[in-house]
Amino acid sequence: MAQSDKATLVEDFKPASSNQPGKPYPQVNSQARVRASISAPQATKVQLDLGGKKYDLVKDDKGVWTGESLPQDEGFHYYQLNIDGASVPDPGSLYFYGAGRLGSGIEIPAGDGDFYALKNVPHGLVSENIYFSKLTNAWRRCFVYTPAGYNESTKTRYPVLYLQHGSFEDETGWAVQGKTNLILDNLIADKKAVPMIVVMDNGYANKPVTGTTDNTARPVSIFEEVMVNEIIPMIDTKFRTIANREHRAIAGLSMGANQTMRIIMNNLDKFSAIGGFSGTPNYPSADVIDPNTFLDGKFKDGAAINKQLHVLWLSWGSKEPNPFPGSIGAFRNMLDKQGIKYAQYESPGTAHEWQTWRRSLKGYVSLLFKN
Amino acid sequence: MAQSDKATLVEDFKPASSNQPGKPYPQVNSQARVRASISAPQATKVQLDLGGKKYDLVKDDKGVWTGESLPQDEGFHYYQLNIDGASVPDPGSLYFYGAGRLGSGIEIPAGDGDFYALKNVPHGLVSENIYFSKLTNAWRRCFVYTPAGYNESTKTRYPVLYLQHGSFEDETGWAVQGKTNLILDNLIADKKAVPMIVVMDNGYANKPVTGTTDNTARPVSIFEEVMVNEIIPMIDTKFRTIANREHRAIAGLSMGANQTMRIIMNNLDKFSAIGGFSGTPNYPSADVIDPNTFLDGKFKDGAAINKQLHVLWLSWGSKEPNPFPGSIGAFRNMLDKQGIKYAQYESPGTAHEWQTWRRSLKGYVSLLFKN
Repeated sequence: MAQSDKATLVEDFKPASSNQPGKPYPQVNSQARVRASISAPQATKVQLDLGGKKYDLVKDDKGVWTGESLPQDEGFHYYQLNIDGASVPDPGSLYFYGAGRLGSGIEIPAGDGDFYALKNVPHGLVSENIYFSKLTNAWRRCFVYTPAGYNESTKTRYPVLYLQHGSFEDETGWAVQGKTNLILDNLIADKKAVPMIVVMDNGYANKPVTGTTDNTARPVSIFEEVMVNEIIPMIDTKFRTIANREHRAIAGLSMGANQTMRIIMNNLDKFSAIGGFSGTPNYPSADVIDPNTFLDGKFKDGAAINKQLHVLWLSWGSKEPNPFPGSIGAFRNMLDKQGIKYAQYESPGTAHEWQTWRRSLKGYVSLLFKN
Repeated sequence: MAQSDKATLVEDFKPASSNQPGKPYPQVNSQARVRASISAPQATKVQLDLGGKKYDLVKDDKGVWTGESLPQDEGFHYYQLNIDGASVPDPGSLYFYGAGRLGSGIEIPAGDGDFYALKNVPHGLVSENIYFSKLTNAWRRCFVYTPAGYNESTKTRYPVLYLQHGSFEDETGWAVQGKTNLILDNLIADKKAVPMIVVMDNGYANKPVTGTTDNTARPVSIFEEVMVNEIIPMIDTKFRTIANREHRAIAGLSMGANQTMRIIMNNLDKFSAIGGFSGTPNYPSADVIDPNTFLDGKFKDGAAINKQLHVLWLSWGSKEPNPFPGSIGAFRNMLDKQGIKYAQYESPGTAHEWQTWRRSLKGYVSLLFKN
């Protein structure tokens, strides 16, 4: 951190809410700066690697390295420490799966953080569900949120939202850093969302490789088939769902937005609502979309789509990097041209990160199953 | 590692089953040695810290440090890396809560590992359950295993096992490294255990500190009150339990064994079975126990206890360190003297670690609810 930044540092740092129990570091101050600290007496260089920048920490006479970042966006960020060239998790933080690894994350308090706070309202359960997928010939896992009251009342049936993560993330994303359970608990308690089941599965599902010696073959995703032929039937058997299109929604973030938009347009008999958070199926292109050819002409008949889709939701962060503004913009232009109605939301002051997606989930589920 | 050890190293290392998806290190070979590896080009000393020993890793010309441990006991061990004096999680492993931190763990394949393997049998669910505890004035969490079929059949009611972790561990211990769900899934599929619900809560529950300025006051544990007055009523409301003593068991490991033995002897109207894994309530003393005074004379009437307890189980690892052999031995001597019947099991070749407790759980639950 430059001297000019040091001069304006406000000394009101507190341990982050995303820390391990009792761990004093990392800390966050009222400027949304992060202070990292670690004992590494024999190290020659220690850095905090956060938000695409590496901040040099400074060693004290006890061998403890400490330093601060520039102010961060509100919400959740992945980060790591670098110790003499080794990239490692911070031993002070909890760990989160994203960016292709289980590693450190930090929660920057947000002005609107109340909607995902742990509050004195009835709480649903999040269940870990292991299953064997014949299509992929592999064990898979999903997390299933059931709303408060699900277990007590053994007759009520519920609508279902299938909710997908982004690239280099997994089925824990929405269940852990996404705070899906708390967002739903709070909305349902406030009667802003109807009680629903939320299924969070893994978007990576590849065709098994058999009878080939070609190790360079790219994996072929069959997630759509797994969703339609394995996940939905399993959930409709194991949980008390209302098993029809009117009571089944889907949504995803980034890669998951792309995937779920394709899934719903190929399966309009199975779903009636779609949410695309920070992603569209034309990604990464910002070119004008021709509805006659795009996705085999699935968006050609705007009037029919308006009848079939009860909710079509698109959202993004105001600070999204390229190519997202361009590709989402091109997709919206196509929808507008086709006269296809959709709800839209721009998350203020957030980028391609979890705070955008938490806010998107809040807005989207508030519209679901209300027809 | 000394040269003599290097000479006998068998080069059949494979990535550990406890690694993050796709991560090549750490690895384990057929001698149960662990090979750690991490890139740290500017470091001057990197160590693998495992099983109470620190092993120096060796740097290659690309800045990657690699090295091997001595052979380890079968089962699960906590470990960490030390980089120029910083103790950090290995970025290659999954993370487990124990030893007072969320950090690295490694799975050494065991000869009897089949009983906790992920197999093609019906799988139960593990639910994360958040609740507010008035007694501690704090949010708490438990994981609840419900057996396969629980959700499909909405009428069947089940017996319940309350299962507790050890000191410096938490409610994730049994649910994650304990592999409780897989152990139960496999035993139930083999008809070696009856279908049951397993509740894994946090054994740390302190009286709220109010109206005092004395910051040096030691926390007062009220876990027994929380278990009896909050956890059990909540579970009996939220889950389809058979809510009586004949269908309620309790067990714990180490600190949890001590806690649960006290809980059952104070609440024989609520439980009919107890399992003590690597712990007894006289810990850490190895002195002869006087049943007239020990735990307020709760073990005085051996005949009455034999009638009330359907299962009294004690187990330990053959390599337990002091003071466990002495204190468990003194407790068993007291039981023998009082004519109190109990089942016993010694886990071969394991110490005060999770492999002892997985095996203990397998043996104990096989005896439960069969009267």
